[in-house]
Amino acid sequence: MKKLSVLACLVGLITIAYAQTDPLPSWNDGPAKQAILEFVRVTTDTASPKYVAPEDRIATFDQDGTTWVSHPMYTQVIFCLDRVPAVVAKKPELRNVEPFKTVLSGDRDAIAKLSTPELEKLLAETVSGMTVDEFAAEAKKWIATAKHPRWNRRYTELVYQPIFELMQYLRANGYKTYIVTGGGQDFVRSYSLDVYGIPPEQVVGTAGGTKYGYDADGKPILTKEPKLLLNDNNAGKPEGIHLMIGRRPYAAFGNSTGDREMLEYTGAGTGARLMMLVLHDDAQREYAYGPAAGLPDTKVGTFSEALMSEAKQHGWFVISMKNDWRRLFAFEKLSND
Amino acid sequence: MKKLSVLACLVGLITIAYAQTDPLPSWNDGPAKQAILEFVRVTTDTASPKYVAPEDRIATFDQDGTTWVSHPMYTQVIFCLDRVPAVVAKKPELRNVEPFKTVLSGDRDAIAKLSTPELEKLLAETVSGMTVDEFAAEAKKWIATAKHPRWNRRYTELVYQPIFELMQYLRANGYKTYIVTGGGQDFVRSYSLDVYGIPPEQVVGTAGGTKYGYDADGKPILTKEPKLLLNDNNAGKPEGIHLMIGRRPYAAFGNSTGDREMLEYTGAGTGARLMMLVLHDDAQREYAYGPAAGLPDTKVGTFSEALMSEAKQHGWFVISMKNDWRRLFAFEKLSND
Repeated sequence: MKKLSVLACLVGLITIAYAQTDPLPSWNDGPAKQAILEFVRVTTDTASPKYVAPEDRIATFDQDGTTWVSHPMYTQVIFCLDRVPAVVAKKPELRNVEPFKTVLSGDRDAIAKLSTPELEKLLAETVSGMTVDEFAAEAKKWIATAKHPRWNRRYTELVYQPIFELMQYLRANGYKTYIVTGGGQDFVRSYSLDVYGIPPEQVVGTAGGTKYGYDADGKPILTKEPKLLLNDNNAGKPEGIHLMIGRRPYAAFGNSTGDREMLEYTGAGTGARLMMLVLHDDAQREYAYGPAAGLPDTKVGTFSEALMSEAKQHGWFVISMKNDWRRLFAFEKLSND
Repeated sequence: MKKLSVLACLVGLITIAYAQTDPLPSWNDGPAKQAILEFVRVTTDTASPKYVAPEDRIATFDQDGTTWVSHPMYTQVIFCLDRVPAVVAKKPELRNVEPFKTVLSGDRDAIAKLSTPELEKLLAETVSGMTVDEFAAEAKKWIATAKHPRWNRRYTELVYQPIFELMQYLRANGYKTYIVTGGGQDFVRSYSLDVYGIPPEQVVGTAGGTKYGYDADGKPILTKEPKLLLNDNNAGKPEGIHLMIGRRPYAAFGNSTGDREMLEYTGAGTGARLMMLVLHDDAQREYAYGPAAGLPDTKVGTFSEALMSEAKQHGWFVISMKNDWRRLFAFEKLSND
């Protein structure tokens, strides 16, 4: 009995020690986890021929579908839809104009069918015409309360814990982590430090212009304009990375065709580069979609067959949510927690 | 004799100790130096009501005329002029077109009289139509050899040592230092880490677009386009700061009317904010220009009377090169060095 206790104790200690030394406890052992550990090893070991100087260690993460749930609708689209009543209250002439009329009707099916140009019109109206400070306050207020209907949890709780651990692990090894998102730069910046530990200046996103001016009291203000400066999708991702960061990443993480060019550009650099794509193949714990896995296509984050074939050709790693991740979210306990 | 040696030794030790503890040895004691020390004290002392969290500590520096010599011509303009023969060799049809014809003539007076639209045309032609990597290599090569005619030293040796000490002092106190320049973002990024200890991602400048594509071998490339994305002068400075950094600086340093809006925007924040302007009033050690000091106006970095009156109104500090700086450049030895 006493011997058994000691043994149990020892096993417990070893488990704790393992948990403490494993930087990626939410990942199952497998090629994806091994690739990450190996990449960090060869780029941070000064004796390695693939050593990367600390100031060059840049890692970029797409957001929707890569760092958090983006199904069935991008979080920012929901934010914009939720803002429509306030926008129409200020501009009543929009009440009977599409797509505002449809959004105000509350008809979910009709809303789900809004076209991309209609969504862009919504976006332009709901995220402009206010100061950058007012916008940040609105976004912070919304993100603190809005919940995902399936889990009934705040969207920020739906960050993938394995990706969060990966960000922390890279940062602990001198990497500067960036979000490079098709989502709105100012929207993501309003919560990036709290949610990802990533400061606003390390968020590259779709960005509109601002206009410097003075309010009625002569105080300087920056007003958000409905003018697009950077569409941070597809080719816009490497272009945005050059504009905002000014150098090529050593690691890039995405989940859809919108991330293709970012991964290509990252992979075109010399030395060790790590490119990974998250495949949503876990209908039970999250969602399963993407033709690459013989799964249905969706409007959000398409993992096409062409993308899968390019991944194979270039040696990009495909992360299977189902097989590679022990848990998806921080609120799910691990068996040895 | 022995006593004197001990005394000399002691004085020597005390001088060394003083030099080690004074973070700004190239500054004379005076209101400017005191303002810097006081600003850092109140924003980094956790007991101070004006304490600023480390992640919010942002300081922005204009470049030309603030961190290095910009007289008689902006360094980048000289770089562009020097590039004209190579550009014309590639595009012979420009040989007899203005302003290329004038530049190729070598007529210094005529070149000095080129208008702003002509200079912009030069800029667009000389910094586009190549990949971002090719441009960075060209800029690095030029900056490593080109010299200022007055000092016969490389431009990067003409960084003001007091400003460099200020940058280091702010960084040692948790401030993230940025260059926010009307100069070309990619040009300044090519040397910012070596010269200022500022990585490329902390350089905000006038930026053109890039285009993602593939070279003849199918390798992904980013090509510099002659399309202006951000004119980082005047109102463009706070707009650029919002785009690239996403928050308001706590300290901002400039030297001309082009920095006015950046200083206004910085000063409009709550808590302690430090705004400073360098006045070029030292004809002996550098140059003296600017109507604010009753000195002649020049095309580069105008310190107007309106700017001086705004500085007084808002409590911005005016740094007199002549009185506030013990030395201007690192190659000038201090008396106790």
